[in-house]
Amino acid sequence: MKYPIGNEMHSWACDLFPICRSITGDGVRKTLNYIKNLLPSLTVHEVSSGTKAFDWTVPDEWNIRDAYVEDENGARIIDFKQHNLHVVNYSEPVDVWLPLEELNKRLHSLPNQPNAIPYVSSYYKRWWGFCLTHQQRSRLKPGKYHAVVDSSLKPGSLSYGELILPGTEEKEVLLSTYICHPSMGNNELSGPVVTTALAQWLMNLKSRRYTYRIVFIPETIGSVVYLSRHLEVMKKNTVAGFVVTCIGDDRAYSLSHSPWCDTLADRVAEHVLKHHTPAYKKHFFWELGGSDEQQYCSPNVRLPVVSVMRSRAGTYSEYHTSLDDLAFITPSGLEGGYEALRKCLIALENNHYYRVPFPCEPQMGKRNLKPLISSKNTKHPQLTMMRLLNYLDGKHDLLEVCDQIGRSIIDCIPIIRELQNNKLIVLENKVRDQGSNG
Amino acid sequence: MKYPIGNEMHSWACDLFPICRSITGDGVRKTLNYIKNLLPSLTVHEVSSGTKAFDWTVPDEWNIRDAYVEDENGARIIDFKQHNLHVVNYSEPVDVWLPLEELNKRLHSLPNQPNAIPYVSSYYKRWWGFCLTHQQRSRLKPGKYHAVVDSSLKPGSLSYGELILPGTEEKEVLLSTYICHPSMGNNELSGPVVTTALAQWLMNLKSRRYTYRIVFIPETIGSVVYLSRHLEVMKKNTVAGFVVTCIGDDRAYSLSHSPWCDTLADRVAEHVLKHHTPAYKKHFFWELGGSDEQQYCSPNVRLPVVSVMRSRAGTYSEYHTSLDDLAFITPSGLEGGYEALRKCLIALENNHYYRVPFPCEPQMGKRNLKPLISSKNTKHPQLTMMRLLNYLDGKHDLLEVCDQIGRSIIDCIPIIRELQNNKLIVLENKVRDQGSNG
Amino acid sequence: MKYPIGNEMHSWACDLFPICRSITGDGVRKTLNYIKNLLPSLTVHEVSSGTKAFDWTVPDEWNIRDAYVEDENGARIIDFKQHNLHVVNYSEPVDVWLPLEELNKRLHSLPNQPNAIPYVSSYYKRWWGFCLTHQQRSRLKPGKYHAVVDSSLKPGSLSYGELILPGTEEKEVLLSTYICHPSMGNNELSGPVVTTALAQWLMNLKSRRYTYRIVFIPETIGSVVYLSRHLEVMKKNTVAGFVVTCIGDDRAYSLSHSPWCDTLADRVAEHVLKHHTPAYKKHFFWELGGSDEQQYCSPNVRLPVVSVMRSRAGTYSEYHTSLDDLAFITPSGLEGGYEALRKCLIALENNHYYRVPFPCEPQMGKRNLKPLISSKNTKHPQLTMMRLLNYLDGKHDLLEVCDQIGRSIIDCIPIIRELQNNKLIVLENKVRDQGSNG
Repeated sequence: MKYPIGNEMHSWACDLFPICRSITGDGVRKTLNYIKNLLPSLTVHEVSSGTKAFDWTVPDEWNIRDAYVEDENGARIIDFKQHNLHVVNYSEPVDVWLPLEELNKRLHSLPNQPNAIPYVSSYYKRWWGFCLTHQQRSRLKPGKYHAVVDSSLKPGSLSYGELILPGTEEKEVLLSTYICHPSMGNNELSGPVVTTALAQWLMNLKSRRYTYRIVFIPETIGSVVYLSRHLEVMKKNTVAGFVVTCIGDDRAYSLSHSPWCDTLADRVAEHVLKHHTPAYKKHFFWELGGSDEQQYCSPNVRLPVVSVMRSRAGTYSEYHTSLDDLAFITPSGLEGGYEALRKCLIALENNHYYRVPFPCEPQMGKRNLKPLISSKNTKHPQLTMMRLLNYLDGKHDLLEVCDQIGRSIIDCIPIIRELQNNKLIVLENKVRDQGSNG
Repeated sequence: MKYPIGNEMHSWACDLFPICRSITGDGVRKTLNYIKNLLPSLTVHEVSSGTKAFDWTVPDEWNIRDAYVEDENGARIIDFKQHNLHVVNYSEPVDVWLPLEELNKRLHSLPNQPNAIPYVSSYYKRWWGFCLTHQQRSRLKPGKYHAVVDSSLKPGSLSYGELILPGTEEKEVLLSTYICHPSMGNNELSGPVVTTALAQWLMNLKSRRYTYRIVFIPETIGSVVYLSRHLEVMKKNTVAGFVVTCIGDDRAYSLSHSPWCDTLADRVAEHVLKHHTPAYKKHFFWELGGSDEQQYCSPNVRLPVVSVMRSRAGTYSEYHTSLDDLAFITPSGLEGGYEALRKCLIALENNHYYRVPFPCEPQMGKRNLKPLISSKNTKHPQLTMMRLLNYLDGKHDLLEVCDQIGRSIIDCIPIIRELQNNKLIVLENKVRDQGSNG
Repeated sequence: MKYPIGNEMHSWACDLFPICRSITGDGVRKTLNYIKNLLPSLTVHEVSSGTKAFDWTVPDEWNIRDAYVEDENGARIIDFKQHNLHVVNYSEPVDVWLPLEELNKRLHSLPNQPNAIPYVSSYYKRWWGFCLTHQQRSRLKPGKYHAVVDSSLKPGSLSYGELILPGTEEKEVLLSTYICHPSMGNNELSGPVVTTALAQWLMNLKSRRYTYRIVFIPETIGSVVYLSRHLEVMKKNTVAGFVVTCIGDDRAYSLSHSPWCDTLADRVAEHVLKHHTPAYKKHFFWELGGSDEQQYCSPNVRLPVVSVMRSRAGTYSEYHTSLDDLAFITPSGLEGGYEALRKCLIALENNHYYRVPFPCEPQMGKRNLKPLISSKNTKHPQLTMMRLLNYLDGKHDLLEVCDQIGRSIIDCIPIIRELQNNKLIVLENKVRDQGSNG
């Protein structure tokens, strides 16, 4: 099979697709339970409605059983059971008859994308409404309609999943993804399935340098709540973090930078993407439109967090509609995104300060690392090895050295191993901080 | 009226135009008296001839009553009373008959600008001479001429005006302009009239953050003398300064940078001009040809001073001739220059370190600063506000933040007020130094 | 004569050309003796075979009397006495008959350069072999051949020359060249002859600011051995160093930078070449292919060393063949290279921190350094002098100032003298370190 991990991730997405998620409620819990089957060490936390988190408050919990609009003949014109995007997310309960002109005030459709159901939410204002394709809407005739939302909005809790994978160092890498959108592909399921696959890979590593903090949260309110509980330790320990979202389609690669583009996360992501896919698109923090990095990088948090994506939220027409579906994300798209992120983690794990242990170049000939007879046409078989030896001075981390010599850190890691085995480099004990973030 | 302040400034220039100014003498005093009528708090200082100032000495005072060249018939061929550029500025007294070939050694004209009287001075060498258009000169016939300069050159004093407007901070902003050229428009009167209008605006402000040091001095010797009296306090307190000159024509905008282009004055002027008039022309300090910034930025002074101008001295053909007249400067030209400088002062007054007072983004929805129902086509009405909130971390001043998010500080100031009113930002107590100037 | 020094250097190269040099042996000693005649203070050092130097060991000494291949008729097909490139450098002794197919395994030629004898060496593997033009080789007929190398390879010593020219400062400038290749021009003799001429020039200076450490060494093993004996003092004192090689042809100028391009040597060489020959070619350290700067700049040595060259080793087709001969290097090529390096040394000697001793500009008029009568068309005759006065603040060295004002330091030095004579600048006592080298 060409994309073994991509196919597996896609099958998880297919399983998770029908669940009606929101920022609270049973949809989130079902999703987290599914992931817990794949990652048994995942812990699910519940945070009560009304809990304060900085400037925010955890809202009432929302659950929904059914929602529909019937015509006078009892025919279901709009039916939540056909697609959960048909109801405005977080709609309050309602059961009312109303004429078309009143109903229209509660309907959302997209004239420019007549076959797409839009995704609409109203978390912080009590409201109800329905979404439908513009084609459907244009067929509605004057008359009376019966609108029913069988939902509940009452004190409950916000649910999130957390997985801590300890490393030999206390310093942490953050992976954060969200599980709060109903049936959508790139801008929802690509995130949790790629994060799950990365977590499985990390768990199977023989050893990990860094501790990994992996969180599955509802967007915005989830990261605000999570930060309100863990800000101190995350500020102290996080060396780099990645918001995992929009990582499953086949079109683009893109990188959302931290506010000042100057953290280790920026450096790693930039280096990896440059070599993984030189044409990736660069986004600045001030463009806004980011996901939870808006919280992780906010002025008093300023964690070194970026987002490595494929087609970024807001930049593709299928975004936030029913067209962002299981066909929009693909096994190859998911596997490419997974690989880009995995390379970032490999780069971080190996980004040490190495140093040649003696002055002058090593004599490569006596170690059979260089031809002994030298003539004009002798090509050095170990150019990258020699370049590394010329730059590994214990003052620049491997990433800086690879950038300076124009080589991918991923390609250099096996050479680093060979140099270590030949005792031609040693590890320098040096603490790399997380970059300044301004 | 389209340019109310520009028209007022132009009328002042018309009043001041006929006065024969020089680096000392009654022309300066008359000019300062006129300005004192507009700025009653202006103090006029007198510095005696012979006073040492660093490498310089205040010269004897020059005054002139009349000057002319008569032909043998007693007809005035060249007449100071028709245009005060006709006499070489600082000419010593003379009353002599001489043939044309001798007279010619004392005449200055411009073959390439045959209808312009050039402006010529000889401050530090005793000399006399006359200036005339090349057209006039070419009509002179052989014969004897009577040259008379009824001037005096004797111990007296150098005059300058000074206005200190105290602010809530001891730190100072410098405005420096010169009042030493005879009847010329852009390269003389535009400076004092724009400075006077800025001073009036500053005096009428409800409160001023910075103390303003505003000086009206003869060029070069005036700034040398002024610095010799105030260097210590100016080095201690000046956060930014502007030499106000060549600021009244309608053609260009230009900026003369400080020696290393790295002071707060450079940053403010660059930011303001970029948004005020993106096509402005950049001049480096090493190009020379500057005015008093040559003294304010000299190696042992190195104040953070730049010059924001319209057509820079030396770059326009009318420069230092009778063509730089009251028509060359215009109400719109003066008002545009005044506005550019006023924006620089507004930017300085507001260039604080602001900080969001809590972690994570504020919940904008509950403050009605964001739509509560979110769909794909929701445009955030407060993009600039959100960008500011994402960058105001108390570590970067407002100017750096505005540069980073690509917005004019002038446009951001009302949003800053709104954020303050909503208690979404607070002021960080932080001292901004003046930039390194190398 | 148009290139007096170039012609003299070329005549030295002609004398040295026939000697069969290698990394050890009498060829090196003869070469050093010839140079000692030109530089009587040169000291020749001998380092015994088997001596350890960091990761390296001094090899057995190699000497050769004769080497040839005869055919069955006793005709010399390949003859070391005709050209010393015919034998693989460091060939072990041999005297053997063998058929053409066996002989072929010991032969080196260049199919793409059929009239060139390649230069081949085997220092660290016992081996013997012959080099010949591809034309010669294609004429060889099947049959038996008699291969004889009358050489010796036994404990002896490695020889190098060293000349220390003391200066008023303890801080040192390094000039390093190699004397280990047999009969080649650019990639051998240009180095020692230009270094010798520079040493003669330095010895004849009335005074020297810096101490000069000038070494004539075999490439690689020589610099490794030399560093193993002098690393500490060189790290402490070296402000800049130059590897002198490939400096005699007429084609290009090039500069090999230090690893991070940030040392005083980089700055000086870049400045001088930019003004000497703007189209010079820039090489980065990570390109490899350098000479002894690979050792001087290795991670635990990191001296501020660059190489100023004409056609760099490896970039011209004649490189490492018999075509790199006495015609490839020319008097004009050698003199141009000598001048570029001499300018680097002049720049270093004069690269002080100067400061104007008082605030504000000097009054140039009273010193007759500026016209006293000022009119529109007055051109300042001393623009560069004024620019220097505006930037010499005691905080930036002369090189930075010259780069900022866009003038060659070589052109500025006479103006600096004039300013010193007029007491318009003084020397600031400030230690310039060698730059960071990362």
